[in-house]
Amino acid sequence: MASARFVVLQVLLVAAALAAVPFVLSDPPPLQDFCVADFTAATAVDGFPCKPASTVVDDDFFSSAIVSGPNTSNPFGANTTRATVSAFPGLNTLGLSIARIDLAPGGLNPPHSHPRGSELVLVLVLKGEVMVGFTSGANRLYSKVVKENELFIVPRGLQHFQHNVGAGDAVFVAMFDAQSPGLVVPTFSLFATKPAMPMEVLAKTFLMGEDEVDVIKSKFAGF
Amino acid sequence: MASARFVVLQVLLVAAALAAVPFVLSDPPPLQDFCVADFTAATAVDGFPCKPASTVVDDDFFSSAIVSGPNTSNPFGANTTRATVSAFPGLNTLGLSIARIDLAPGGLNPPHSHPRGSELVLVLVLKGEVMVGFTSGANRLYSKVVKENELFIVPRGLQHFQHNVGAGDAVFVAMFDAQSPGLVVPTFSLFATKPAMPMEVLAKTFLMGEDEVDVIKSKFAGF
Amino acid sequence: MASARFVVLQVLLVAAALAAVPFVLSDPPPLQDFCVADFTAATAVDGFPCKPASTVVDDDFFSSAIVSGPNTSNPFGANTTRATVSAFPGLNTLGLSIARIDLAPGGLNPPHSHPRGSELVLVLVLKGEVMVGFTSGANRLYSKVVKENELFIVPRGLQHFQHNVGAGDAVFVAMFDAQSPGLVVPTFSLFATKPAMPMEVLAKTFLMGEDEVDVIKSKFAGF
Amino acid sequence: MASARFVVLQVLLVAAALAAVPFVLSDPPPLQDFCVADFTAATAVDGFPCKPASTVVDDDFFSSAIVSGPNTSNPFGANTTRATVSAFPGLNTLGLSIARIDLAPGGLNPPHSHPRGSELVLVLVLKGEVMVGFTSGANRLYSKVVKENELFIVPRGLQHFQHNVGAGDAVFVAMFDAQSPGLVVPTFSLFATKPAMPMEVLAKTFLMGEDEVDVIKSKFAGF
Amino acid sequence: MASARFVVLQVLLVAAALAAVPFVLSDPPPLQDFCVADFTAATAVDGFPCKPASTVVDDDFFSSAIVSGPNTSNPFGANTTRATVSAFPGLNTLGLSIARIDLAPGGLNPPHSHPRGSELVLVLVLKGEVMVGFTSGANRLYSKVVKENELFIVPRGLQHFQHNVGAGDAVFVAMFDAQSPGLVVPTFSLFATKPAMPMEVLAKTFLMGEDEVDVIKSKFAGF
Amino acid sequence: MASARFVVLQVLLVAAALAAVPFVLSDPPPLQDFCVADFTAATAVDGFPCKPASTVVDDDFFSSAIVSGPNTSNPFGANTTRATVSAFPGLNTLGLSIARIDLAPGGLNPPHSHPRGSELVLVLVLKGEVMVGFTSGANRLYSKVVKENELFIVPRGLQHFQHNVGAGDAVFVAMFDAQSPGLVVPTFSLFATKPAMPMEVLAKTFLMGEDEVDVIKSKFAGF
Repeated sequence: MASARFVVLQVLLVAAALAAVPFVLSDPPPLQDFCVADFTAATAVDGFPCKPASTVVDDDFFSSAIVSGPNTSNPFGANTTRATVSAFPGLNTLGLSIARIDLAPGGLNPPHSHPRGSELVLVLVLKGEVMVGFTSGANRLYSKVVKENELFIVPRGLQHFQHNVGAGDAVFVAMFDAQSPGLVVPTFSLFATKPAMPMEVLAKTFLMGEDEVDVIKSKFAGF
Repeated sequence: MASARFVVLQVLLVAAALAAVPFVLSDPPPLQDFCVADFTAATAVDGFPCKPASTVVDDDFFSSAIVSGPNTSNPFGANTTRATVSAFPGLNTLGLSIARIDLAPGGLNPPHSHPRGSELVLVLVLKGEVMVGFTSGANRLYSKVVKENELFIVPRGLQHFQHNVGAGDAVFVAMFDAQSPGLVVPTFSLFATKPAMPMEVLAKTFLMGEDEVDVIKSKFAGF
Repeated sequence: MASARFVVLQVLLVAAALAAVPFVLSDPPPLQDFCVADFTAATAVDGFPCKPASTVVDDDFFSSAIVSGPNTSNPFGANTTRATVSAFPGLNTLGLSIARIDLAPGGLNPPHSHPRGSELVLVLVLKGEVMVGFTSGANRLYSKVVKENELFIVPRGLQHFQHNVGAGDAVFVAMFDAQSPGLVVPTFSLFATKPAMPMEVLAKTFLMGEDEVDVIKSKFAGF
Repeated sequence: MASARFVVLQVLLVAAALAAVPFVLSDPPPLQDFCVADFTAATAVDGFPCKPASTVVDDDFFSSAIVSGPNTSNPFGANTTRATVSAFPGLNTLGLSIARIDLAPGGLNPPHSHPRGSELVLVLVLKGEVMVGFTSGANRLYSKVVKENELFIVPRGLQHFQHNVGAGDAVFVAMFDAQSPGLVVPTFSLFATKPAMPMEVLAKTFLMGEDEVDVIKSKFAGF
Repeated sequence: MASARFVVLQVLLVAAALAAVPFVLSDPPPLQDFCVADFTAATAVDGFPCKPASTVVDDDFFSSAIVSGPNTSNPFGANTTRATVSAFPGLNTLGLSIARIDLAPGGLNPPHSHPRGSELVLVLVLKGEVMVGFTSGANRLYSKVVKENELFIVPRGLQHFQHNVGAGDAVFVAMFDAQSPGLVVPTFSLFATKPAMPMEVLAKTFLMGEDEVDVIKSKFAGF
Repeated sequence: MASARFVVLQVLLVAAALAAVPFVLSDPPPLQDFCVADFTAATAVDGFPCKPASTVVDDDFFSSAIVSGPNTSNPFGANTTRATVSAFPGLNTLGLSIARIDLAPGGLNPPHSHPRGSELVLVLVLKGEVMVGFTSGANRLYSKVVKENELFIVPRGLQHFQHNVGAGDAVFVAMFDAQSPGLVVPTFSLFATKPAMPMEVLAKTFLMGEDEVDVIKSKFAGF
């Protein structure tokens, strides 16, 4: 249970970090050769201000953020390590980012989507066997089991998941055409909000009684 | 129950219609004064081909699609009437659309998001009292009760709902900066897909046993 | 005459307000979940800086700016109430805005266009009968009389007008895919500028003598 | 008078040509090295289809369209020669075009704006002395007399004019960030439409009686 | 030498393939849930037409194109395997692609840039030690040696190279925010064109005599 | 040789100037009527902050930057004079710029490309005879000799050159759909970087021995 809280805490901290700073997403084209993010500037803009070009060094364009993944001993058997702009300031204004996801056997990166304009996901499996699937607007489920160095593309904004269906650990990377693609996890957006989602809304959403909803809601109580 | 199936059928048909034709969303700027959608062209492109300009008439820029709303006697007490490009061909390439939502007392337009780049929602209440809310990436729930001619803005891609909290019927319009903003309803994307979402994925998503998931899933069996 | 000056003053004040601050229009996609406009920031950027996320409250996403319209006792019998970003800071970076136009019987929202990239207009009539028309680049006039909950689309950047052709008052809303769509009213851009447009330019524009132009110009003297 | 009709006819023909074909404007980025416009393709899209790459020749990227300007013996003393995509097919998808304007002494390119998203104008004077001016949204008139190889920038979508204030002929080029920037000439959009603009709209627009409006309107009768 | 010709032939064939079809690059946002490329459509547009949605299958979103790399026995000790839209039709309209580069010890992916709007490169090393560098507009060379699962970002459009500086083979992937990012290899653009670049241009470019240029040019004679 | 160093120095200074300030390129649409660049603002953003609108004057929209060109007595017989945003602050956010290039007889604007998203080049010859050419991704060389008031279009991002092939001096202007299109000159990006490009990379790039490379490199030693 501690690990469950840990992963939830991690998710909340990442989300809080994303919301706490004016992080840059992808779409507008860059306006200069580069604009390495200056996290200390006084004025908050829609995206980060730039470090002075004279102080930019080679290391600003380099990142070891995803060399290793944290452990996966939590209820989902999954952990995400992001190299988005807040971890890799050289990405600022350049419209790309990457994340590494580690999955224990049976681990699940639960269904989610990315909220802003220009993100979509190209999944590259580094190790193991991962089922990747997305649901289209017509509620058609498209999925495949993807192995080492195989690819799967998730169209923009559609809800998707990755599930470790192999015998051992699995690792894959997801590339985004956004510096910080954002994250909507429906279960958290419903059951783990502050303030809480009105019970009447939850009950009608699931076409269930409030008692039945409380059973679901209790699973997300610690997050 | 018939009405429940009706609304689901309606949702599925709309989704199927959206998926069956190359419907145009918003972002790229228009390239000519107008390009009224030609639904009969031989070649399918990302967005509709144009009717010859010489055949365009005043009525192509006019629509009575949302003058009245269908009844709301279904499990959600809600019905959506869209004036997106497939119903209003003059919108083609122009990056805007509108929908009318009718809510019975207590009716709910269930939590959902819009998948593609440029949509967001500006809600204008025409009648009644509607609670509108969205969940940010940090799982903060922002909501307000909105009355006649009042407005609420839902940021791009975030999950949101509208709930009739007044004594009578409610009607509102939602404007999108997209011709066809797309739709992701998480409950349908999980419980009403074809083929069905793997049970293992559903169970892990809700941190529940498969029996418990079957209880939820049964509510969406008819859709 | 007072009312004529009133409406002109209003127009000039709105224009001045629009010019006095770095107001945000539509096109670039949002880079974060939201960026509520900070009107007090020291540095002026192309669009508003953001309030710190920690100070954002539910009310930032809500507006009652267009609940009621001002009176229409002015020469045009028309009044516009805007919920653009300067009145509704939650719109900042989100690329949408709305305006309410009240028209007395016979009132006219005079021919105009919106100057920046991404604006176009989707007219929704709330009350009364309004003729809406636009002139294409080929000088074809497209127009319709539009009634309650009916729609008319004006392609991007083209000159258009709305005219109350019913017996009573009329109210409609215009949605823009821009936070602040800008405004070009040709008559004001010719006859009410500071400094004044050179008389030689005006005369040649209307293919008239300077005396004839003075007759027109005098109508706009008070504005 | 014949020449007056000639220039009007020219304007109308150009406008008709622009409306008759799906001409490409600027904004979306090119998707391939080049896409030379194929004016003969069966399907009309928002922008031109491409010639097969194997049939593209050096001359597709070259144009002598603005080497000489037509005479300026018409009521405005002005003539515009366009190298937009319909005259220069190599521009297709590349988002740039240019026009040459010849002005007799005292000649005027009358106030106008360009309707679509991405156009703006950078004026380069090749010969003579030209006053260039634009009116901002706050009705401030900004203007300068511009001589050989001097530049003036007109912000996007704002109404502007060019006037030959020198002793001799003048020639300038205007560059657009659009393949076909479109054209709104307010006087033509009001007085030379088909069908005619309702007299009630014209009268209210100019705050004049219908007789007074008829005087203005008669000047544009032949166009 | 045969292998040298082989790699050149490969490069030329890829380039020819890219030029022979209207291949889709990245920028415009997708207009529908997906638009799987239809390589057989009659009309060529700027980007591929779409397969009918009813014929789209799970495999359209999957690719094994980069599972293995071809041998690297050629003068550069390098080979590139692309999963761009022409190899992976599900990428169409989705604005992302990936390539796998295999480098023999000492192998070099020679200096190059990507010509179209939205490409930039995020390098992820899968195996070995690779020096990655780019030259800014100010001719500052930024470079790093990058190892397994480390990242390096190359700003948009700048010239860059990757060099295997380790003892063994190296493999890395490069992600692009474009379906088909295009390729400019300066040496090939100068010495291997059809028709040949004028000798006078080459000599002045290198500030050398024609004889000296012939020495360089001869190295690229077989390509 | 002094002049050779002069032009190099000029190139380096321009490049340094471009890199030293957050200069604005083209693509995002303007968000207000205008945003004249404020070069003195404290916070550096991706593009310039705006001068207060109340301090903007007519001259901000005017530039005489390219009225005359500097002499061409340098090894390339060429000189470029830019009216990009750093020289013409009124261009800020407006997405257009222009440059004037003077060529002595036989002078060459050496092969180069422009790195950022939205630039492409429309060449207008003002005087003389200039061969303009570009190399496509398929290494096809497209070129033409262009004379007074003739045009040539260079597709986005492709490598191109201009060569004075006439008997006298030549002058042309190049228009960009970017405020500051950036510059990649391959020879300088290879032979004139700081720190120096590794010799191993240079040798492999040219398929030559290090001694042979040193011969080329020595030509660029003074730059």
